[in-house]
Amino acid sequence: MPLVIQKFGGTSVADPERIREVADHVARTVRHGNDAVVVVSAMGKETDELIRLAGDVSHVRPGREMDMLITAGERKAMALLCMALHSLGVPADSFTGSQAGFITDTNHSNAKIVELRPDRLRKAIDAGRVPVIGGAQGVSTDHDVTFLGRGGSDTTAVAVCHALEGDACELYTDVPGVFTADPRLVPRARRMGAVSFDELLEMTATGCPKPAMRSVEYARRWGVKLHVRSAFTWEPGTWVLEEDPSMEQAIVSAVTHDTGEAKVTVSGVPDQPGIAARLFRELAAVGVNVDMIVQNVSDHGVTDISFTVPKDDLVQGTDVCQRLADEIGAVGVSSDSDIARVSIIGAGMKSNPGVAATMFEVLAGEGINIEMISTSAIRTSCVVREGQIEQAVQSLHSAFGLDTV
Amino acid sequence: MPLVIQKFGGTSVADPERIREVADHVARTVRHGNDAVVVVSAMGKETDELIRLAGDVSHVRPGREMDMLITAGERKAMALLCMALHSLGVPADSFTGSQAGFITDTNHSNAKIVELRPDRLRKAIDAGRVPVIGGAQGVSTDHDVTFLGRGGSDTTAVAVCHALEGDACELYTDVPGVFTADPRLVPRARRMGAVSFDELLEMTATGCPKPAMRSVEYARRWGVKLHVRSAFTWEPGTWVLEEDPSMEQAIVSAVTHDTGEAKVTVSGVPDQPGIAARLFRELAAVGVNVDMIVQNVSDHGVTDISFTVPKDDLVQGTDVCQRLADEIGAVGVSSDSDIARVSIIGAGMKSNPGVAATMFEVLAGEGINIEMISTSAIRTSCVVREGQIEQAVQSLHSAFGLDTV
Repeated sequence: MPLVIQKFGGTSVADPERIREVADHVARTVRHGNDAVVVVSAMGKETDELIRLAGDVSHVRPGREMDMLITAGERKAMALLCMALHSLGVPADSFTGSQAGFITDTNHSNAKIVELRPDRLRKAIDAGRVPVIGGAQGVSTDHDVTFLGRGGSDTTAVAVCHALEGDACELYTDVPGVFTADPRLVPRARRMGAVSFDELLEMTATGCPKPAMRSVEYARRWGVKLHVRSAFTWEPGTWVLEEDPSMEQAIVSAVTHDTGEAKVTVSGVPDQPGIAARLFRELAAVGVNVDMIVQNVSDHGVTDISFTVPKDDLVQGTDVCQRLADEIGAVGVSSDSDIARVSIIGAGMKSNPGVAATMFEVLAGEGINIEMISTSAIRTSCVVREGQIEQAVQSLHSAFGLDTV
Repeated sequence: MPLVIQKFGGTSVADPERIREVADHVARTVRHGNDAVVVVSAMGKETDELIRLAGDVSHVRPGREMDMLITAGERKAMALLCMALHSLGVPADSFTGSQAGFITDTNHSNAKIVELRPDRLRKAIDAGRVPVIGGAQGVSTDHDVTFLGRGGSDTTAVAVCHALEGDACELYTDVPGVFTADPRLVPRARRMGAVSFDELLEMTATGCPKPAMRSVEYARRWGVKLHVRSAFTWEPGTWVLEEDPSMEQAIVSAVTHDTGEAKVTVSGVPDQPGIAARLFRELAAVGVNVDMIVQNVSDHGVTDISFTVPKDDLVQGTDVCQRLADEIGAVGVSSDSDIARVSIIGAGMKSNPGVAATMFEVLAGEGINIEMISTSAIRTSCVVREGQIEQAVQSLHSAFGLDTV
């Protein structure tokens, strides 16, 4: 019998009615002749609420206790989903991360899976039952409860699929798959039937909201077949696959964008070895999450260094630069939060020179100024004014032939 | 170093501010030179809310899943309390029932403790840390999460005190101890410095709201010293002790009352063997919780049977009687929910005949009619009109010399 792992995120189980809908979906999967294992996240915004509650109680929040607190969320969702399954005549048992056999390291709030011992899951499946697992949970080698971090439920699902040699790992979201661009910005965006791991990783890193990057990396390493689809329809979604070298690759598969970052520029920096290292070491030390980094060519021995950070880190990032400005001999520090990033992604870019040039031309043709550029083998990203991001995404989506006809 | 077990109920940890107050209380206990182990219930009304949520999701609610759901409540409270303790500089670790070593039977929603393996608790104490345990939790011999039932946190605390050979088990409530009567009804009620296990069990069974009866039974069996006290003051509360035969015993220690029951009367029943058995077996089968039972002497071969049930069970209890009326040859079934029970309790009643007679005289003197009577060695209970219960309790409290002067 085929074995399907189905992961439902917080939005899919946000209230009693949606939990019943998810149960209905799982019940149908079983009645169509599949074995099923379900992974659930906490209901709706519950994880955020638990974190807020902790903040109301104490300014000291040890990782061990935060993980104990947060994992209460999935515990509720999984027990409720089991009840809903029982009411549909589908025998189901809930399992905490620990009961499901997830052994992790002791790195609280962001634990890594060390081993998965799925004996209880297998036993439940063999007994004709549906295991419902609390996502993003485990028990550490010190026997403490651990949380795998935000998006950890995707990782749980992928790991279970690998360990049980499942036939597919279905990640249910509130959209019907992975799109060539955000449909809210680009009405003619298409759902992609398939996407390569490489492409999806680049898309996730540049603003496509799901699935969680770590789970995609695990899925690739373990050869798990991912299927990103909607909890609200029965339509197929997007399969995530290893690239097939025999297939003709789209030059550009998708256009993504990200409006969550801001730019910091340190100008007039002496072009000497060690300056950049000093700066970014210091930023890392205070936990500022630097994304793109661009350093211009030197002009008369001085250069400008620009980088982007999440908007939440902007004040701290700017502070660090200002503090270091004297020491590194910089002339000035400026910041700008009215920026956005647009990226084109495609496995075929590797063998097609000139794609980046086309991107720049399209943007220029729209009168959109490019402020920073960064590239990888299968991605080119440009930072533009935030107010022009919609126009940038739409024009690139059309220019690279992605619009639905 | 003395070891104190401190149990805080839902009211004591109902919100972030109260959690911080409890942390402050525990921190002071530790700074006064004690080792401490803390047991917490779920915050405020959270257990009720989780049960309501389950009802919104499904009409089928397997015990295994209900226990998984409900135990999320204590999990939150214990993690939050640990954070608050850390912020006061008191190192503390939370433990689920399973982590604390509570092995139970597989009787979900009302599991019994089979064994307690407190290795992790002892290790934490030896390391100078305060273990904070989720109350009413365990793991079954089948490795499933279990709930010990309502009031189970008291049982958790008593069992921990026994297993760790603690010096005292402090049950914190929102009142400063056990009173000679409900202070809301009797302004001159006194806090009792000590009460015997027998008396407390009778009081708990007849309307005194705390602590949970099962925990008192365990405490007696294991010789655990219980101290019922308030979380909001540092005053000593009420100690619960084995009766000391050398002490002079108060004839009446307390007057309790209960307005939560209703009365059902089955009249004109043939006085034949097996009739009462048939009736109460059927009531038990549908889960009606019968308390007092009174059968009058037979008059011309027929008799009346009256019994009390919780008001919530009244409709069902009456239905059962009406259904059985023909079969057992009864003439009629009537019910009455405007009743209340008043009880006098005292270990000294055993050796003082005539106490019951005094009770009846006091009530008669107040013009209060007695509708049912039931007695034990150290208790006499009377059912009266609900509207007269305040007068009944006050007059008995005065008559037996319990009023503060």
